[in-house]
Amino acid sequence: MPDNLIEITPSAYDYPLLIKHLLHSPLIRSPDQVIVYREHRHTYRQFRDRLGRLASALSDLGVKAGDVVAVLDWDSHRYHECYFAIPMMGAVLQTGNLALPPEQLLYTLNDTGASTLLLNVDFLPLIEPLASRLPHVSRFILLNDRPDLPTTTLPVAGEYEALIETSSPFFVFPDFDERTRATTFHTTGTTGQPKGVYFSHRQILLHVFSTLTELGVATVQGRVHRDDVYMPMTPMFHVHSWGVPYSATLVGLKQVYAGRYSPDVFLRLIRDEGVTFTTCVPTILQMLLNAPGSQNVDLSKLKMVVGGSALPRPLAKAAMKRGMDVYAGYGQSESCPTLTIMHLTTAQTTGDFDAEVELRIKPGYAPPLVELRVVDSDMQDVAHDGMATGEIVARAPWLTMGYLNDPKASERLWAGGYLHTGDMGSIDPDGTVHITDRLKDIIKSGGEWISSIDLEDIILQRDGVAKAAVIAVHDDKWGERPLALVNVLPEFQGSIGRDEIRAHVISFVEKGLISKFAVPQRVEFVDALPLTSVGKIDKKELRAEYRDQLPEGHMPAAAE
Amino acid sequence: MPDNLIEITPSAYDYPLLIKHLLHSPLIRSPDQVIVYREHRHTYRQFRDRLGRLASALSDLGVKAGDVVAVLDWDSHRYHECYFAIPMMGAVLQTGNLALPPEQLLYTLNDTGASTLLLNVDFLPLIEPLASRLPHVSRFILLNDRPDLPTTTLPVAGEYEALIETSSPFFVFPDFDERTRATTFHTTGTTGQPKGVYFSHRQILLHVFSTLTELGVATVQGRVHRDDVYMPMTPMFHVHSWGVPYSATLVGLKQVYAGRYSPDVFLRLIRDEGVTFTTCVPTILQMLLNAPGSQNVDLSKLKMVVGGSALPRPLAKAAMKRGMDVYAGYGQSESCPTLTIMHLTTAQTTGDFDAEVELRIKPGYAPPLVELRVVDSDMQDVAHDGMATGEIVARAPWLTMGYLNDPKASERLWAGGYLHTGDMGSIDPDGTVHITDRLKDIIKSGGEWISSIDLEDIILQRDGVAKAAVIAVHDDKWGERPLALVNVLPEFQGSIGRDEIRAHVISFVEKGLISKFAVPQRVEFVDALPLTSVGKIDKKELRAEYRDQLPEGHMPAAAE
Repeated sequence: MPDNLIEITPSAYDYPLLIKHLLHSPLIRSPDQVIVYREHRHTYRQFRDRLGRLASALSDLGVKAGDVVAVLDWDSHRYHECYFAIPMMGAVLQTGNLALPPEQLLYTLNDTGASTLLLNVDFLPLIEPLASRLPHVSRFILLNDRPDLPTTTLPVAGEYEALIETSSPFFVFPDFDERTRATTFHTTGTTGQPKGVYFSHRQILLHVFSTLTELGVATVQGRVHRDDVYMPMTPMFHVHSWGVPYSATLVGLKQVYAGRYSPDVFLRLIRDEGVTFTTCVPTILQMLLNAPGSQNVDLSKLKMVVGGSALPRPLAKAAMKRGMDVYAGYGQSESCPTLTIMHLTTAQTTGDFDAEVELRIKPGYAPPLVELRVVDSDMQDVAHDGMATGEIVARAPWLTMGYLNDPKASERLWAGGYLHTGDMGSIDPDGTVHITDRLKDIIKSGGEWISSIDLEDIILQRDGVAKAAVIAVHDDKWGERPLALVNVLPEFQGSIGRDEIRAHVISFVEKGLISKFAVPQRVEFVDALPLTSVGKIDKKELRAEYRDQLPEGHMPAAAE
Repeated sequence: MPDNLIEITPSAYDYPLLIKHLLHSPLIRSPDQVIVYREHRHTYRQFRDRLGRLASALSDLGVKAGDVVAVLDWDSHRYHECYFAIPMMGAVLQTGNLALPPEQLLYTLNDTGASTLLLNVDFLPLIEPLASRLPHVSRFILLNDRPDLPTTTLPVAGEYEALIETSSPFFVFPDFDERTRATTFHTTGTTGQPKGVYFSHRQILLHVFSTLTELGVATVQGRVHRDDVYMPMTPMFHVHSWGVPYSATLVGLKQVYAGRYSPDVFLRLIRDEGVTFTTCVPTILQMLLNAPGSQNVDLSKLKMVVGGSALPRPLAKAAMKRGMDVYAGYGQSESCPTLTIMHLTTAQTTGDFDAEVELRIKPGYAPPLVELRVVDSDMQDVAHDGMATGEIVARAPWLTMGYLNDPKASERLWAGGYLHTGDMGSIDPDGTVHITDRLKDIIKSGGEWISSIDLEDIILQRDGVAKAAVIAVHDDKWGERPLALVNVLPEFQGSIGRDEIRAHVISFVEKGLISKFAVPQRVEFVDALPLTSVGKIDKKELRAEYRDQLPEGHMPAAAE
């Protein structure tokens, strides 16, 4: 690992933006506020005490500034502690991506050179077979909630709670350069090996302040305040749960961590702990709404930012019918993640259900400090007319400086001085962003671009359609044409065929909403659609499955 | 002037915290929002256009990065433009302190070496006689609202609006180091010459984000949001109007600037423009409430942060009776200025008038990133029990690095690695700060410390007392004893004497609220109390007036 810690000469008035400084405000203001992990709860005062103990324990085991400490855990109070203590001691927190296949997870741990691995005992069967191929990892620390600590072949340095209990709370968290790396993790890439991104203390703090400002000054809809109770419904290994555990701690909110994901645990905690603010991806929201007993839980106090992929209109409607304050955000691993958040203005909060749906599913506005542009291939801005599309590029003080150990991809990422999101979009006259498609998912057909996302959105509006994915297939005449893969609800199976889907799409052509050219000739019905680890439809997998029908440029080769 | 601009090597992912970056969000989100100056109004789009023109005009006249550009104006849309355009071009904005006596104002302009002076024609009579003693100032630009531009003996480079009109809006505001000096101004010191403080782009942005987060996430009381209409009732030369013009611009609020101060103009603008958020000092609030016709203006939508000096209980009550959401903040010129802001929690917002008063007059909580301590003379923390007092010291990423051209005072300011506020205080068990006194105003009597502020606060609660000041006078036996200077309302004159004041104070001794030892033997009645330029009672002046009765340590010598 590079020496990522530059000691700064302490000067009285120099105040580096370090994660430790997020703690001043909550510790003076709400030391007795609680952090909940299922049945466990402790106060912020205890949380601070445990941070000192965790850092002492890691330090005693030999963890030094600049070392990478990887964590594999469900969402927990311990993970929350790792978010703080590890970077605060000058080490780098690697949030191991549990959704990756074992070989890719192995790759990511070797890519960062993590020397310490904190893992939940639930993942012993995953890690034990890989251990011999983790040459950098010199210590394993177990996180355990079972009555007895399972035995393992791993060379274990200790169990988290036992280490905490016997270590000193009086660890002195030093000052150092704010550009010191604080976190790293790997994108669930759709192509090739996962790519590592990384963020400094400074970047994490500036992301916190911009997003908190945006969420705080919202008029009514979606606004976050001191009485909120926060629980992530996104995994903590996924882009720091969008940074909210840092923000929630700064504000001194009650926080709730759900452990291993399941809709019934989420529902119980929402009800029992009074959760009012959460982050979620569409697939988990769908599970939450459809889970047995869901209807018996009052969701009308729940604000939810939906990201990860576009918020489908029918899903937004279903959530709104439950009284939820649901709204979209947009970002990605490379951007820490926030690039936009949607909030309705007071004038837009009319109570007109259909009008509000159309607004709530928009990705929204760039928060403070984000310079977001939609550009053509010459990096020229397209018109802000809601029609002209281009690639979304951005500058903001919290974007990854590159990909780990991949200078070429890093250079491409930052071509022309802006981070390239790889997303196609447009900007409406009101300043909100619209995402048309992933650059690589867009269908280039006869010189026109067809948005796979727009087509999926239209098909999803057909009664009886549960899921839909549109990918490009090779066409001798047009270069590419769309192929629609449709999953139909059980009770509609047999009653919806290709013609019904096509007729439905054509009705949108007649309304002038899409081009006639976009109507897919080919519609296939499937029993299920493959998902990526963060719940997005896995188009890489679909492209592999339909590879014989794919045009050249979409070959899912290893080099893709 | 030192070369304060360090050009940074532009790297794609480096994003310095510059004032220009505050503009991305409002320009995309609310370009048609308005900024009002009395009868004039323009949009944010026009504001941005005018920033380019102003920078072009100044650049064409020879203003370069690192130059100091001083402004002498009432609160105006032009001043608002200077807040942005001057630092954005890499120059330093000096906000000239109009309340200083002419000789001190002269001193401050020579202290910074300002090369350019933008001045409202109202101040020509002030500046013309000084011009020959301003060797650094090479250009004067006039700000004029009169039908005709007055003639002047000054070598005028142009009139602001004429320069704007003929200059290009397409000025390219460069990237540079975020630690580049953005602003400078002089404290209305109570001793000696005014002291210059200075703030970088980075400091101003971090102050914006911390205070906006604090104001945004407040539950109900005092919270700031996108529908607010902002008007400062503090002068723009005073600590950037507490930074709110920067914050309000970032959020895209409607902003109102009142020009030359008068309560009737404030009242008219509050009514006609729907002002909902303002900053104010106690004396101006008092004028607002007591102005002719004040009762006819609805103030019930107005949130007001009161700072500059303690918010007196009777004044808070009077404002609350008008329906105002009034609450205290605390800070000083050296701290940009915010060190604390008071907000009631939901549990505290009971509607119990008297209980709320006691909370609203507290200076409140340190916002995010402020490490605020109350320490004894060995820099050890005193107990947070609301009783133990010490000096308030702080670290935060926005405190002045020192005093201009005064390394010795700078060193004292930062002794022990914390900024010394010179204020005595305590911290309540709930984490709120209580200011006991200015370190130099506290009365050291027989080994005990008597708070002049506590005594003033008690005396002000006596019916018929309009104003009160308590200073130390020499006492052979006790070292110092308090002298109370009291101004009585006209209708009470003759009916309140020394005995009534002393009996009133003694009643607080009987309630156990202050020590018997604090009761002043000496009470003098005065027709008026001298005020400093920012409306605080001028104890320096009082000490001069009562100098024969002063103990040694309080001699108002030049070296004090």
